[in-house]
Amino acid sequence: MTAYDIILKKRNGQPLTQKEIHFFISEYLQQNITDYQMSAFLMAVWYKHLNDKERFYLTMEMMHSGYQFTFPEISTPKSDKHSTGGVGDGVSLSLAPLVASCGVAVPMMSGRGLGHTGGTLDKLESIPGFNVFPDKKTIKKSLKKIGVVLFGQTSDIVPADKKMYALRDVTATVDSIDLIASSIMSKKLCEGTDSLVLDIKTGQGAFMQSKQDAKKLAKAMIKIGKYFKKDMTAFITDMNQPLGYSVGNSLEMIEHIEILKDHGSPDLTKLVTTLGGEMLKLSGVVKSLKEGINKIQENIQNGKGLEKLEQIIKAQSGDPKVLEDYTRFPKPKIKLEIKSKKSGYISNLNALTIGKAAILLGAGRLKANDKLDYAAGFKLLKKIGDKVKKGETLAYAYASSTTKAESGASLFLDAVTLSKEQVQSKTSLILDKI
Amino acid sequence: MTAYDIILKKRNGQPLTQKEIHFFISEYLQQNITDYQMSAFLMAVWYKHLNDKERFYLTMEMMHSGYQFTFPEISTPKSDKHSTGGVGDGVSLSLAPLVASCGVAVPMMSGRGLGHTGGTLDKLESIPGFNVFPDKKTIKKSLKKIGVVLFGQTSDIVPADKKMYALRDVTATVDSIDLIASSIMSKKLCEGTDSLVLDIKTGQGAFMQSKQDAKKLAKAMIKIGKYFKKDMTAFITDMNQPLGYSVGNSLEMIEHIEILKDHGSPDLTKLVTTLGGEMLKLSGVVKSLKEGINKIQENIQNGKGLEKLEQIIKAQSGDPKVLEDYTRFPKPKIKLEIKSKKSGYISNLNALTIGKAAILLGAGRLKANDKLDYAAGFKLLKKIGDKVKKGETLAYAYASSTTKAESGASLFLDAVTLSKEQVQSKTSLILDKI
Repeated sequence: MTAYDIILKKRNGQPLTQKEIHFFISEYLQQNITDYQMSAFLMAVWYKHLNDKERFYLTMEMMHSGYQFTFPEISTPKSDKHSTGGVGDGVSLSLAPLVASCGVAVPMMSGRGLGHTGGTLDKLESIPGFNVFPDKKTIKKSLKKIGVVLFGQTSDIVPADKKMYALRDVTATVDSIDLIASSIMSKKLCEGTDSLVLDIKTGQGAFMQSKQDAKKLAKAMIKIGKYFKKDMTAFITDMNQPLGYSVGNSLEMIEHIEILKDHGSPDLTKLVTTLGGEMLKLSGVVKSLKEGINKIQENIQNGKGLEKLEQIIKAQSGDPKVLEDYTRFPKPKIKLEIKSKKSGYISNLNALTIGKAAILLGAGRLKANDKLDYAAGFKLLKKIGDKVKKGETLAYAYASSTTKAESGASLFLDAVTLSKEQVQSKTSLILDKI
Repeated sequence: MTAYDIILKKRNGQPLTQKEIHFFISEYLQQNITDYQMSAFLMAVWYKHLNDKERFYLTMEMMHSGYQFTFPEISTPKSDKHSTGGVGDGVSLSLAPLVASCGVAVPMMSGRGLGHTGGTLDKLESIPGFNVFPDKKTIKKSLKKIGVVLFGQTSDIVPADKKMYALRDVTATVDSIDLIASSIMSKKLCEGTDSLVLDIKTGQGAFMQSKQDAKKLAKAMIKIGKYFKKDMTAFITDMNQPLGYSVGNSLEMIEHIEILKDHGSPDLTKLVTTLGGEMLKLSGVVKSLKEGINKIQENIQNGKGLEKLEQIIKAQSGDPKVLEDYTRFPKPKIKLEIKSKKSGYISNLNALTIGKAAILLGAGRLKANDKLDYAAGFKLLKKIGDKVKKGETLAYAYASSTTKAESGASLFLDAVTLSKEQVQSKTSLILDKI
């Protein structure tokens, strides 16, 4: 068995055996297989795909390349949610405390934002003092004590995926459903969760632009999960316009604190309660999704979710006073009104463009080591379907300088399309359930 | 313009511009584009192909990556032949002196053998003292003085191709017609030849196993040549069984000396005179291929070809006495008779297997730095269509030890298929002309 033989076999479209995938990944990690052989292999996979079993083998190899969490001391069911990422998607921020407040443990490992999409870690770090990298002992302790821990992926977790992703990123092989599915699942399975709810975003602000691809990815991930005997559900949800009314780190954090205070916008709240309800159902805490949604809603109304978030912030060294006093979040220097240049109905609010505009404000990263301005971002006043008059405020841009605010605002306006006829906004963000 | 954009564009099957190909190759040579990006690119090319113009651009970039010969001081037309390689293919050894003896300059750059195929350089080196790496001044001097020089490719010629080939070799992207065509043409165009005759081998001992692929390769190479305003012809020729009756370095050298003495086998001699005749025709020395063939045959019969080979050997420091005294070639220690185990007619004589058997004898290389035994090889007594009796000698194996001779002989027997009915041998090695 040689690297060459395996590349050739995949190049010719033949399925690889478990032994072959084990050999390729383990030898790559031991640097006996080179980066240029791996990148040729990944390109061959891009074209010739992986079948269900190959994805399972690849996921397993990547998982086994590093540290895996296990929580034998925790007797409650454990559940997590994964979103494929989008603009304004701070859902985890309210979802994790809500689910945990219903008696399901949530060991949630997240990433940072890159490109037009935000990252949960950055949003959490907008809370002064919040530590997204507690050590493993603290992670276990927090999960046992308060039933939820929100932490960042460290370099000892799925190192194979990290190395392969770095290659994919510069060789145009990121957008492979096989590789995305295996990559995400290898990370999520390392968390030691029992069940997993997927939020697969689709639309112009999502990685999966078409609903068809989103469904393919969902099915591939669910198949992998089944091999590992994990209970899984996938929701296909809309990412054409930004989620909710906030784009930016502290802005989204505040938006989700508002949800926990029962002041959230109906569409975003519905997404949170649905994803949370499904996590409860998969965990066996409730019998139906409907019952789960009701339980999550209950814990919004009775303040138990907010209470849980306070516990999280305290456990992870953050300032819990932010919950009551938003001025404790980093303050933006500049607040700029973005006014509509015409009258009409908003027919499009391109999430991709708004995500890119947020980078100009300082809220996002172009490169992994770019510094963020936690206070930067957009506060939206209007969304698709809304009527606007010429000169009316569409949104506010927050930034550290007028130049940044103006360039962000200018690009924001490119994202807005007005029409004479009213475009019906979608009644639900949830397009499909698998 | 970034490496990523170019990989992505090719991955998606879009044609690249001259600027893009220039950027990719030149930045690769300057190590601003990595091996892993190049190997992903090469894999994308393997799947999505290059069009005529892209092949031209790639060939030009590779050519320009290193030294290119020009011979402004030579007024006679210059021509060369390139064979895609096979078993027993020592054609250049008699062809080059014959064509030069007809007044056409032959600046012939060759390679070494690798795997089951032999290399002209190795065969020439079986002549004691023969220098296949004369310096550039000597190359020019020899070509001017005797009208022919047989030399090896140095590292300053098409370094881009060398680097890319090394990658292709370990990432399963060698067998791309686009890359093969551009690679060969970039080398051949560096010779400063005016015209080029291609001998594209097809069959079980060739890289292009199907005639269809051989034709595709021929057409791709001719198209590239046309962009460079070179006159080109391609012959598709048979490589199912070894060419002629000798496989091995000194054995093939002797076989082609015999051709020059007018003692060659008819099929091999016909191939030599046809390729040579076409070179004369492309050079304008004769008006038709038939006239060219006659002129080559004339120079076999009148000894002018042999005389030219003597001049070459002298000019390149070899021992010219080998032409009359074959005992001056390195001597094999062991000569083993390979006897037929059954009676019948030879219906197959697998060139690939015989090429591999020759490696066992010491006549070929598995790796680029393996040492050769110039005396090793097979002398064939029977070929496809011949009748053999049980116990009759099929061939002789020459090697430096009994072990080597026996293992080579054993594999040789695997290459032989006998049938009860006589199989008609092909009347000509030449299957097509493009």
